[in-house]
Amino acid sequence: MATVHELRPGAYYDSIVLMQLQHALVGLPQVTDAGVVMCTPANLELLEQNDLLPEKLKGAPEDLVIVVQAETEESAEAALEQVDELLARRRSRAASEFRPKSLQSASQMLPDASWVLISVPGRYAAAVAHEALDLRKSVFLYSDNVEIEDEVELKARADELELLVMGPDCGTAIVGGIGFGFANRVRRGRIGLVGASGTGLQTVTARIHQLGEGVSQALGTGSRDLKETVAGAMAGRCIELMASDPETDVIVLVSKPPDIAVTARLLQKAWTIGKPTVVNFIGYPPPASSLGNLHFAASLVEAADLAVGLLDTQLAAIKPPELRSGARYLRGLFSGGTLAAEALAGFQTVLGPVYSNIGEPKLSDPLVSKEHTLLDLGEDVFTVGRLHPMIDNDLRIRRLRQESADPDVALILMDVVLGEGAHPDPASELAPEVTAQQKQHGVEFVIIMVGTDEDPQDLGSQAQQLREAGASVFEDTAEAVAYSTSFFTQREMDMVDAELLSKPVSAINVGLESFYDSLREQGAEAVHVDWRPPAGGDEQLQAILKKMKG
Amino acid sequence: MATVHELRPGAYYDSIVLMQLQHALVGLPQVTDAGVVMCTPANLELLEQNDLLPEKLKGAPEDLVIVVQAETEESAEAALEQVDELLARRRSRAASEFRPKSLQSASQMLPDASWVLISVPGRYAAAVAHEALDLRKSVFLYSDNVEIEDEVELKARADELELLVMGPDCGTAIVGGIGFGFANRVRRGRIGLVGASGTGLQTVTARIHQLGEGVSQALGTGSRDLKETVAGAMAGRCIELMASDPETDVIVLVSKPPDIAVTARLLQKAWTIGKPTVVNFIGYPPPASSLGNLHFAASLVEAADLAVGLLDTQLAAIKPPELRSGARYLRGLFSGGTLAAEALAGFQTVLGPVYSNIGEPKLSDPLVSKEHTLLDLGEDVFTVGRLHPMIDNDLRIRRLRQESADPDVALILMDVVLGEGAHPDPASELAPEVTAQQKQHGVEFVIIMVGTDEDPQDLGSQAQQLREAGASVFEDTAEAVAYSTSFFTQREMDMVDAELLSKPVSAINVGLESFYDSLREQGAEAVHVDWRPPAGGDEQLQAILKKMKG
Repeated sequence: MATVHELRPGAYYDSIVLMQLQHALVGLPQVTDAGVVMCTPANLELLEQNDLLPEKLKGAPEDLVIVVQAETEESAEAALEQVDELLARRRSRAASEFRPKSLQSASQMLPDASWVLISVPGRYAAAVAHEALDLRKSVFLYSDNVEIEDEVELKARADELELLVMGPDCGTAIVGGIGFGFANRVRRGRIGLVGASGTGLQTVTARIHQLGEGVSQALGTGSRDLKETVAGAMAGRCIELMASDPETDVIVLVSKPPDIAVTARLLQKAWTIGKPTVVNFIGYPPPASSLGNLHFAASLVEAADLAVGLLDTQLAAIKPPELRSGARYLRGLFSGGTLAAEALAGFQTVLGPVYSNIGEPKLSDPLVSKEHTLLDLGEDVFTVGRLHPMIDNDLRIRRLRQESADPDVALILMDVVLGEGAHPDPASELAPEVTAQQKQHGVEFVIIMVGTDEDPQDLGSQAQQLREAGASVFEDTAEAVAYSTSFFTQREMDMVDAELLSKPVSAINVGLESFYDSLREQGAEAVHVDWRPPAGGDEQLQAILKKMKG
Repeated sequence: MATVHELRPGAYYDSIVLMQLQHALVGLPQVTDAGVVMCTPANLELLEQNDLLPEKLKGAPEDLVIVVQAETEESAEAALEQVDELLARRRSRAASEFRPKSLQSASQMLPDASWVLISVPGRYAAAVAHEALDLRKSVFLYSDNVEIEDEVELKARADELELLVMGPDCGTAIVGGIGFGFANRVRRGRIGLVGASGTGLQTVTARIHQLGEGVSQALGTGSRDLKETVAGAMAGRCIELMASDPETDVIVLVSKPPDIAVTARLLQKAWTIGKPTVVNFIGYPPPASSLGNLHFAASLVEAADLAVGLLDTQLAAIKPPELRSGARYLRGLFSGGTLAAEALAGFQTVLGPVYSNIGEPKLSDPLVSKEHTLLDLGEDVFTVGRLHPMIDNDLRIRRLRQESADPDVALILMDVVLGEGAHPDPASELAPEVTAQQKQHGVEFVIIMVGTDEDPQDLGSQAQQLREAGASVFEDTAEAVAYSTSFFTQREMDMVDAELLSKPVSAINVGLESFYDSLREQGAEAVHVDWRPPAGGDEQLQAILKKMKG
């Protein structure tokens, strides 16, 4: 058994060409294995694991190494000698149609192209994407190994130019029925997707199709878009597009583990839109199964199931009565710790930061409210030598009066928990307060009730007393949260221009030729650029060229 | 307007007595407000907010202050003078039946009592609970403001004695149809609950009742049980009880925000039991909508809905084929990052720690697997100058052979993603490997497929090729995870003695008298202890007594 190799410093070939070369080499007589890779540490370790690492190989990451293992030294050498011929054979096939050498000339060939698909190696990708933006084209940036600083810069530029930059590391998109990169063939329909997750989008779109429904658009953002550094720059823009796209009735948002602060901003945007929206962010704790128009799925498959189920729902238009003049804040006064935690999670999702004594941001003094505030009055600090607020209403009533007298307070949310051990008739004490404070200060009251018809207090009659007193009564925390939030949030959004999604796809492809083939097979107008790295891949020369340009 | 007060150092009264005193004072002629509280900083601040704080009051937290505000100084003083009479009036009512003065003598009156309900002030509660354990009785510990060290010690002792200590800060339980503390009146039925959350248990049990179904048992654990320090000591024991309780067909677990490591241990226990289990842990990201017998709810109300829906499901008994002899580990080789993340979250929930290149614990070298390992082969490190594993199977096939040759490896899980841009026929390359490795090494193969019937590769025929090659093929990550996990986990648990739950409730109540009244109204045998703090509440004397005992 003999292993021979050839090092080609700074050599660039499309990775499909490298794969095909490796396959071709393995197919030659007496060849037992072959490796054709760039000399990164990981690739060299892989060669070693496969007994293919040449001794004393000195390759840099931008160098190509071709290794052949064969039964004899002669057959290994013979295989290696055929490398150029095998590469040329590949190229002659590609030469059957004219290929522009630059994005610039491709753009002249296809002036209507709105899209540039980029799948060149990561270290060249940002420059190509900037070129595309120079030409006022949106970018599908498949390449990975792109610096996050470049991503931030590209997305900021795209935002200014009202263009999209999907990616880097964007595996999937479906625009106007045409799949970019990796995409399943699915029926067109009324579900629009936005995803910081390639196989996430694929799994959900495929499932929607298998369920008999279809996809309007599926927009990838790149896997890092929901990280704090990128701050959901593209996801936010895509949600606005989905809101404005008349073809989209239901929105699905999917992401690999996102950053919590970014998540909150995006969900507040989705809430504002008001279109039914399914959310599946891996590793994100859902605040409820649904909150108003937001529906939380725990898996990709469930996201598709929920989206299909929502297609024919009509959102009840909530038209909240006017707020007490000048009042801006909500105050939650809870007796039940878990109900408080559940409500807090809901508000943090759709309303924004809420101060509390059980989460972040934390009130410095639980006896003094600040902006939106939610309190668990059953917490230890309140119950030393004092009955629990489920038995004794005194503490809550005093706080309720204090909050009502605050001109900033628009709405007070409370829970009323019935049953054994609890106050025998809480409504008899709370209802008069509701009426009095509403009359005197114009404060809204929302109440979450927990109980049964067999409880000593009787759920039905307690709820009725509180309703008659002027409170809105719910039995589900999420419904109470959604209703309360609607007082403080606008449910409409400025329309953006979604023409990019509706007009026929016309695209320039730079990088993997298979993506070009796929565009053409799907019936899209497309041109493939016969791209080479600048300065023939010579990094030093590239740096000089860049300086001269800059 | 005049405000007068009286300070009673170290005075102890039941907090119901204090509430009633306050109400009675407010009802006296010309009295406008009153406060009867222990002098904690929070209570004093509350008095101040209500203009009730006497100037220069010097009370310690264990001192009682009685404040009366009235229209004149005379009427205020007159009210204050009636305090002892009002307290005595209350006491004479309670004296109509005999009250033992100690837990010891109560236990002699009711020797069959299995339970002691404790709601004395927090600083006395641990000692009373230890007394109950001395008497070999289980404890429902309602008191809050108990040190966490005491909780750990009490639960460790209970575990040794095969008793329960529910709490501290345990608001709710339903045992054998009898509610302890705060509890809704609900139908008896086949759903058993375990909760580190009082209003959580109440909300779910009430909803189950409203849906027409019922509750076998609802066991509170105290709000801190799922924190790392307490490590789910009581929740684990309660899950075992639910497993052994023949009345319980479906289990519901609820908790305020739990610690992740504790959560994982409890969910693995619930998985092992095999009874359908609904999980709603606030702030915990569910790994799937369901994983085998575990079903994840995003709200309390949804938890009840799911539990009721599961009542008549039959769990398909998964009888996994035998593992390759001596093999213990699973290896996941993924091309899709999101599918990898979804599968990883699932395994971490039901199988335990899984090493990966995308989460914790992290592989130090992604090229070398360790114990259970799951890899995203599409990560940047693997794709420099190389096609994505969704196009080029070479990397995955080499790794698959390497894993199969490892005698510790029992099962290999892969995703196969079809569609535009992907390999034109992945099964043609993967299926022969599956067959070969299975034959040579006895390794199991599980495959998650993503695609549609309209994809160029055709989902149906790709799945069929892989099935015929010997792989188990799924279209939902969660199903593949549950199936794979079943190879590595026992699905049975030793039965524990659940007699405590099935025999008629007989209880001793120490603390809030209303809890005693409630037990009697519900038809339970009960005795109320006329409890007083040791040494009349004198902290110094208590310390001396404790030393003498110790």
